[in-house]
Amino acid sequence: MKVTFTQAEVSAIVQPIRTEGSTAESVRGIATLGSAEPGDLSFLGNPKYKTSVPASRATVVLLPLDYDGKPGPGQVYLFVDNPSVALARLCSRLEQELWPRPAAGVHPTAVVAPGARVAATATVGPLCVVEDGARIGESVHLQSGVFVGRGSVVGDQSWLMHGVVVQAECTIGRRVRLHPGVVIGADGFGYEFVGGRHEKVPQVGTVDLGDDVEIGANTTIDRSRFERTSVGEGTKIDNLVQVGHNVAIGKHCMICAQVGIAGSCTLGDYVVVGGQSGLAGHLTVGSGAMLAARSGVKDDIAPKTSVWGSPSLPLLLEQKIIILRNRLPELFRRVDALEKAAGLEQPKAPRGRA
Amino acid sequence: MKVTFTQAEVSAIVQPIRTEGSTAESVRGIATLGSAEPGDLSFLGNPKYKTSVPASRATVVLLPLDYDGKPGPGQVYLFVDNPSVALARLCSRLEQELWPRPAAGVHPTAVVAPGARVAATATVGPLCVVEDGARIGESVHLQSGVFVGRGSVVGDQSWLMHGVVVQAECTIGRRVRLHPGVVIGADGFGYEFVGGRHEKVPQVGTVDLGDDVEIGANTTIDRSRFERTSVGEGTKIDNLVQVGHNVAIGKHCMICAQVGIAGSCTLGDYVVVGGQSGLAGHLTVGSGAMLAARSGVKDDIAPKTSVWGSPSLPLLLEQKIIILRNRLPELFRRVDALEKAAGLEQPKAPRGRA
Amino acid sequence: MKVTFTQAEVSAIVQPIRTEGSTAESVRGIATLGSAEPGDLSFLGNPKYKTSVPASRATVVLLPLDYDGKPGPGQVYLFVDNPSVALARLCSRLEQELWPRPAAGVHPTAVVAPGARVAATATVGPLCVVEDGARIGESVHLQSGVFVGRGSVVGDQSWLMHGVVVQAECTIGRRVRLHPGVVIGADGFGYEFVGGRHEKVPQVGTVDLGDDVEIGANTTIDRSRFERTSVGEGTKIDNLVQVGHNVAIGKHCMICAQVGIAGSCTLGDYVVVGGQSGLAGHLTVGSGAMLAARSGVKDDIAPKTSVWGSPSLPLLLEQKIIILRNRLPELFRRVDALEKAAGLEQPKAPRGRA
Repeated sequence: MKVTFTQAEVSAIVQPIRTEGSTAESVRGIATLGSAEPGDLSFLGNPKYKTSVPASRATVVLLPLDYDGKPGPGQVYLFVDNPSVALARLCSRLEQELWPRPAAGVHPTAVVAPGARVAATATVGPLCVVEDGARIGESVHLQSGVFVGRGSVVGDQSWLMHGVVVQAECTIGRRVRLHPGVVIGADGFGYEFVGGRHEKVPQVGTVDLGDDVEIGANTTIDRSRFERTSVGEGTKIDNLVQVGHNVAIGKHCMICAQVGIAGSCTLGDYVVVGGQSGLAGHLTVGSGAMLAARSGVKDDIAPKTSVWGSPSLPLLLEQKIIILRNRLPELFRRVDALEKAAGLEQPKAPRGRA
Repeated sequence: MKVTFTQAEVSAIVQPIRTEGSTAESVRGIATLGSAEPGDLSFLGNPKYKTSVPASRATVVLLPLDYDGKPGPGQVYLFVDNPSVALARLCSRLEQELWPRPAAGVHPTAVVAPGARVAATATVGPLCVVEDGARIGESVHLQSGVFVGRGSVVGDQSWLMHGVVVQAECTIGRRVRLHPGVVIGADGFGYEFVGGRHEKVPQVGTVDLGDDVEIGANTTIDRSRFERTSVGEGTKIDNLVQVGHNVAIGKHCMICAQVGIAGSCTLGDYVVVGGQSGLAGHLTVGSGAMLAARSGVKDDIAPKTSVWGSPSLPLLLEQKIIILRNRLPELFRRVDALEKAAGLEQPKAPRGRA
Repeated sequence: MKVTFTQAEVSAIVQPIRTEGSTAESVRGIATLGSAEPGDLSFLGNPKYKTSVPASRATVVLLPLDYDGKPGPGQVYLFVDNPSVALARLCSRLEQELWPRPAAGVHPTAVVAPGARVAATATVGPLCVVEDGARIGESVHLQSGVFVGRGSVVGDQSWLMHGVVVQAECTIGRRVRLHPGVVIGADGFGYEFVGGRHEKVPQVGTVDLGDDVEIGANTTIDRSRFERTSVGEGTKIDNLVQVGHNVAIGKHCMICAQVGIAGSCTLGDYVVVGGQSGLAGHLTVGSGAMLAARSGVKDDIAPKTSVWGSPSLPLLLEQKIIILRNRLPELFRRVDALEKAAGLEQPKAPRGRA
C-alpha cells in the first residue's frame, strides 16, 4: 500500500470523536503497533496490546475512547468508538485507491466477437478475448488478458483479474471476484479404459458460480460431464484449489488453499475445508461440517461435524489418537516389560530398527 | 451444455430402434433420471435405476430394448441397443458443438515470428505468440493467448487451450490436449549451495510429450537439467500436478489432480497415481503399479503392486494398520489392565492428555 | 537442448588440458554415459561410473586427467581438471543459446501506460501489459503476456516469463526470475463472518520479493492485509507453492513444490521446506530449520531443527514412530498373547476387520 493520506484525509474517513496531537507527515502505510514506523497508521484493536501504544512509532494511532495517554511530538491519536471498524473503513477506502474503477468501454487491443454482448457500463481491459455469444454484465471489470469463452455469462459487477479463463458455456454470478490464473470450465478428468487405452469421456456440462463467490489465484474448477459443476452464493475459495467435475458446493462455504475435491462430491452450506485437505469422489459433506487442515476424507460427513486426519476421523478422536501414536515408543516398552514379567518370548529381529 | 436439439435431431444421432411418444420441446441438457427437468434428455445406463424411469421428468429418455413402460404426455422414449453408447454418441456430438472446429489461419492479433512454421490447416487464435523456429503441425488449434517458444514443435491435431505456455525447444506429440494454464518446460528446480547461496544449475534440457497425452489446467511439467523430461503416449494428467525435471512417465498412465512427482523419477506404463500423492526424487515405479490417493512414496514400487499411506506401504498392510491405529485407545486400555493384573507400575503423567 | 556445437566449439568452451580423438559430428545433446547416443556429449562426474566410459556411445566425453583409456573411432575424449565444472560451463553457454538476450525495447503489441517508466535497456515482449506508475528496471526482460500492475517495481536484470502476473504496488528485486504463471499480489484470503455471510477484509498491503529470488511456475504469493508479504534475498521457491498473506520468508530458503504456507507465518533464513508440506497460520520457523517432505506443521519450529510428519514431530522421533506404527499388527498379537497368558478377557467384535 503506497497510497498517501494527510491527517485531514484520515480524519475525514475515520471521523474521530476526539483528536490529540497533530502532524504534517502523510500516512503512507498501515502497520501493527510494534512494527509501525513514522509515516504509518496503527491501531489498538485488542485491549491486551494497550501497553504497546506509548512506544509505537506510528504517526497516527486509532484508539478506543477509554484509552488514557498522550501522543508524542508529531504524533496523532484519533479516538473512535471502535478502532477495528475505523480501520476497516480506512482499508475499504485504500482498496478503492488500489483498484480504481476503470473507465467503461472495450480496450482497442481486446478481441471481442461481434456476437458477444458487452454492457455499456462494463470494462473490457487490454488483450482480453470475449468469444461469440458471451455476455458481459453491467459494471463488470475484465482486468486484462481475460478469456471469456463462447456463450458464457459474467454477471453484473463481477471482477475477473488478469489471465482468468472462463471456457465456453459457463455462468459467473454477480459481484464475483476471480483472481489471476483462475480456470473455470476446463474439461473434467474422465476416461474409459478400452483396448488398453484411456478413451476420453466428453465433458459437455458447464460450471455455474453463484453471486458473491470469490476464487483465489490459479484455482481450477472443471466443467461437468453433463449438467453442471456448481459453487453456491457467497462461497470463498482460496488459491490453487482443485474442484473436480460434477461437484456441487453449497452457499457460504470456505475452501482453503490447495484443497482438492474429487468429482461428484456434494458439499452443503457453510462447510469449512482446511488447507491441503482432499475429498475422494462422490462424497456428501453435510452443511456446517468442518474439515481440519490436511484431512483426507473418504467417507460422507454428517452435518455440523468436525473431522481431521487422513483418512479422517471425528476431530476429537483423531486428536486423541495422535497423542497415543506419539506414545508408541512407551507402549512398546510397556509390552516388553509385561512379556518379561510373564516370561513370554519377545520378538527380536525388527526391534533394533526402532 | 446449452446447445439445443429437436427430437428429430436427437433421433438422427442416436438412431433408436423404436420410438414411443413425441415432443415439440427441444432438448437443452442432459441429466440423470432423478434430477432431469423438462427439456432434459436422460438415460437408463444401469438396470438398477429402472424404477426411476416412470417418475423422471426428462423430455427424452434413452432406454434399453427390454425396458417395459410408456412415456408420459409430451415425453419421448427412445429404445436403443445400449443407452450408454447412445449417450456417448450424443455427447461426442455435443462436444463438437461446444468446441466447433475454428477456421484455419493465423488471427491478426497473434504474434508469429517470421522463422516459425505454421501448417496451412492449423489455427492460431487471437493473441497467441509463436516464436522463431517453432513448428505448428497440421490441424493444430492454439485457442488464444497460447505461447509456443523458440524451436518447439506442436504435433498434428493437437489442441492447446487459452494461456498454455510451451517454453523453448519442447516437443508436443499429436492429438495432445493441454488445458488452460498448463506450463510445459519451465526450469527444473536445481541449485548448488555455494558460499552460503543457492547457485542455479542451468536447466538446458527439454520436455517431450507423446501422442494422445492430455494435461489438465494449471499443471506444470519442468524441463530437464539436460536430456528430457518425458510423458509417454496416451498418458492423462489431471489439474495442478507438478512433474519435476528429468522425470520419465510411461505410456497410458493416469495421474490424478495435485500429484507431485519429484525430479528424476521413472514411471512405467499403466501406472495410476491417486490424487494429492507425492513421490520423492529418483524413484522407480514399475508398470501397472497403483498408488492410492494421498500416498507419500519414498521407495521404489514394484510393477503391478498397490501402495497406500505416507510413507506408503503395500495397500493391504496400510489398510490393516489404519484399522489398528484407530484402535489405539483400546490397546492402551488393554495394556493398562495387563499391568494392573501383573502388579506393574503404570506411567501417569502423559495419560491425562489423551 | 537442440543447439549444436562442433568439436572446436566445445573445446573453446571447456578448454581441455588434453584431447584424444576427433570427430566431424556435431554435439546436439548432453546425456549420462549410459544413455548417451552418437551426437551427445557425456561426462565422468563421479569416479564410481568409470567403468561405464568405454561402452558409452557419446561422441564427446569430459574426463578427469587421471582417467586411463582411449576413445573409439569418431569419438573424442576431453581431459579436464574437473568434468563437473567443465559441464557446468558448457551448460551455462547452452543456457545462453536457449534464452538469447532479446533486443531492448517495447514490442509494438505491448500495452504500456504513458505513466509507466521502462528503462531503455529493458525488453517488454509481445502482448505485455504495464500499468500506470509501474517501473521496469535496467535490462529487465518481460518475456510476453506479462502483467505488471499499477505502481509495481521490477528491479534490474529481472526476468519475468510468459503470463506472469504482478498485481498493483508490489516490488520485485533485482535478478529475480519468475516462471510462467506466477501470480504475485493476488488478494489474501481474509473474511469476517457477519450476519451469516463472509464479508471481505480488504487486502491493501503489498508483496516484496528480494534480490535473486526465483519462483517456479504457477506459484502464488498473496498480498498482505496491510504491510507486506515478503520473500528474502536469494530464496528459491518451486512450482505450485502457495504463500499466504502477511507471510515473511527469510533469505536463502528453499521451498519445494506444492508447499502451502498459511497467513502470517515467519520463516528465518536458510529454511528448507520439503515438497507438499503445509504450515498452519501464524507460525514461526527458526533459521536453518528443515521440514521433510509432506510435513504438516502446526507449532513453531526452533532454529536448526528438523521435523517430519503430519502433525510434525522432531525428525528422529517421527522416523522411530513410523517404524513402530508399521509394527502395530505385531503389537496387537503380543497383547493378545499376554491377555491369554494372564487369563484376561479379550475384545472380539472389531478384531475381524483387521
